[in-house]
Amino acid sequence: MSDAASLSDPIPLARDLIRAPSVTPKDEGALDRLQAALETLGFTCRRYPFGEVDNLYARRGTARPVIAFAGHTDVVPAGREAAWTNPPFEATVLDDMLWGRGAADMKGAIAAFTAAIARFDAAGGDSAGSIAFIITGDEEGPAINGTKPLLEALHAEGERFDHVIVGEPTNPHTIGDTIKIGRRGSLNGVITVTGRQGHVAYPEKAENPIPVMMDLLARLKARTLDNGAPHFQASNLEITSIDVGNTAHNVIPENATAKFNIRFNTAHRGDDLKRWIGDEAKAAGLGWTGRIALDLKVTGEAFLSTPDWFTDLLSDAVEAETGRRPARTTGGGTSDARFIKHYAAVCEFGLVGATMHQVDERVPVADVETLTRIYTRLLEGYLRGGRG
Amino acid sequence: MSDAASLSDPIPLARDLIRAPSVTPKDEGALDRLQAALETLGFTCRRYPFGEVDNLYARRGTARPVIAFAGHTDVVPAGREAAWTNPPFEATVLDDMLWGRGAADMKGAIAAFTAAIARFDAAGGDSAGSIAFIITGDEEGPAINGTKPLLEALHAEGERFDHVIVGEPTNPHTIGDTIKIGRRGSLNGVITVTGRQGHVAYPEKAENPIPVMMDLLARLKARTLDNGAPHFQASNLEITSIDVGNTAHNVIPENATAKFNIRFNTAHRGDDLKRWIGDEAKAAGLGWTGRIALDLKVTGEAFLSTPDWFTDLLSDAVEAETGRRPARTTGGGTSDARFIKHYAAVCEFGLVGATMHQVDERVPVADVETLTRIYTRLLEGYLRGGRG
Ligand SMILES: [Zn+2]
Ligand SMILES: [Zn+2]
Repeated sequence: MSDAASLSDPIPLARDLIRAPSVTPKDEGALDRLQAALETLGFTCRRYPFGEVDNLYARRGTARPVIAFAGHTDVVPAGREAAWTNPPFEATVLDDMLWGRGAADMKGAIAAFTAAIARFDAAGGDSAGSIAFIITGDEEGPAINGTKPLLEALHAEGERFDHVIVGEPTNPHTIGDTIKIGRRGSLNGVITVTGRQGHVAYPEKAENPIPVMMDLLARLKARTLDNGAPHFQASNLEITSIDVGNTAHNVIPENATAKFNIRFNTAHRGDDLKRWIGDEAKAAGLGWTGRIALDLKVTGEAFLSTPDWFTDLLSDAVEAETGRRPARTTGGGTSDARFIKHYAAVCEFGLVGATMHQVDERVPVADVETLTRIYTRLLEGYLRGGRG
Repeated sequence: MSDAASLSDPIPLARDLIRAPSVTPKDEGALDRLQAALETLGFTCRRYPFGEVDNLYARRGTARPVIAFAGHTDVVPAGREAAWTNPPFEATVLDDMLWGRGAADMKGAIAAFTAAIARFDAAGGDSAGSIAFIITGDEEGPAINGTKPLLEALHAEGERFDHVIVGEPTNPHTIGDTIKIGRRGSLNGVITVTGRQGHVAYPEKAENPIPVMMDLLARLKARTLDNGAPHFQASNLEITSIDVGNTAHNVIPENATAKFNIRFNTAHRGDDLKRWIGDEAKAAGLGWTGRIALDLKVTGEAFLSTPDWFTDLLSDAVEAETGRRPARTTGGGTSDARFIKHYAAVCEFGLVGATMHQVDERVPVADVETLTRIYTRLLEGYLRGGRG
């Protein structure tokens, strides 16, 4: 990793990063390896540890515009290691695939962007603006000690970003499928209904919390939240668990708990949804002498990065390398883009996510090469104006 | 306990029985103590062990009619012993109360019926018919190795009973409140709905079992089973548990399980209810690609012992001793009367059940005396025709 030219191949760095078993919140040397590569390419690096998590900021150049790559070196656990075809942290290259935890999500993309800079440098010529890396070790975990405080600290220091590309594996099936230009919001709810325990033979002496819970959940499910919003699919509520834990057939339980999640588009704000859920709980509890307790957390508001010339530049680069004009979507899970949107225009594009978070996570070596070329074109277009 | 006269006081035998910590399926000498008392009174005793449980049959006389006392020496666990005012198995007599596990349910009643026989004998005079005891050590447990096989064995041996009185604590508040002349049936159901796991962000790729479960449960709750039946309150369905066990907020679960219990009157047969539940499950599952599995068990059919002269005899005895004409009900939980009704007319009458199965189970010493007098009158009326 010591000379810049060798960094233009993304695979060695990707393998190096995968070999660090950086399961959140552990780092295991992942950031050191990336930092060494970026320093070779002329970046100035600083660490931002928060809590038990380490984070890395790297920048090269001082001029505007600033294009930043945002990502994470942490990975989800390997699960049952014996179930893997190749060990999760050995970064095996076999059958033209790069295997390992983090190959798709998202060490492969970090290596691709790093390699793209090496190629951009090798191509030479004038360059305007700056490049930055915003890398966290807490994206897969609670995401409390990661991108959010990192961006706050950088902003306080005067760092500004014009456009950010997040390296999440945005493509469902084939590289070039999909750019993400926003994300749905997410609300997690826990409902606890408390009645009065009793014997099933004497229901008049008890207050069964289950029918009240069922009524409330039915009310929540009954509402059509919307029929979609521009660039967004319809909002959706899923009940993910109901738990009573009563093992006795002849006992009316005291408590029932339910969990649900709402993925919502820009037609809603988290606070409005919370108010609505509170109203439904009041309605379900009318005439009921027990208690209904709500624990509602909005983990991210819906947002849309209105497509602009940067989106077009990225789309053009994707199309030039893959022959596919990528769809612009807002579906799927959440990402750190929800924090970044407060500071800069943000797009997301990375590898194919089909195997992410699963046993046998892997990506075609050819995809890592294709992504490197796409990122290179993006840098050319962004920093040298139209060569991409 | 060795002389018949001393047995006419029920309290010493009741205390002796309580001191045997006969938590199902343990006996701890309880049946031995009862058998010794009954042998003193001239009974022939035989044991009927089934599985890990012992049972006792005792009979005196060979003539018809045969009046039998049915009951159980097993008790439910003491729970948190430190919470008891007096230790659960010391049979403390304090403040005119007899304290201990089984005092109400139903060692006190067994001692009362035994004492009633001693008093009946002491009163002397002609006697027609026979007296029997049908005592199990498995009423509070699964009730598989108790009254049911015991009655089958006795029937096979040619034993016949004309009237059976069960000593369950039938009085909710005051001795003399209530005779039970039947019991509701009981059906336990377990529903398992199996869908397909997935991520909440991609509900279209998953099949959430929870809405299907909620639909099925709502269908079951929606039906008014009946508005009561002669001598019976309305049938009732209680959902006792719903369990998914999903701890991840962002995962759509694969399975949901629910439990329910139906207490039903003579307007229903268990098989009809099972068929209905099966039909509703089919309706709830229409168009659903997952599976709905039902596990339905009828633990007892509803039954009514149509009131006859024996019921009147018992009612008269109660009224003579308490000044109260007892209500004739079929409410509350189940009892071994559900097995006995196949062999004989059956009534239930015992002590006050307010503290049964609870910490500090206890009965007034005066109630045990009153119950002994009621049983004595019943025996007089039954065996000497009208002296009760
Ligand atoms: Zn990721
Ligand atoms: Zn009992």
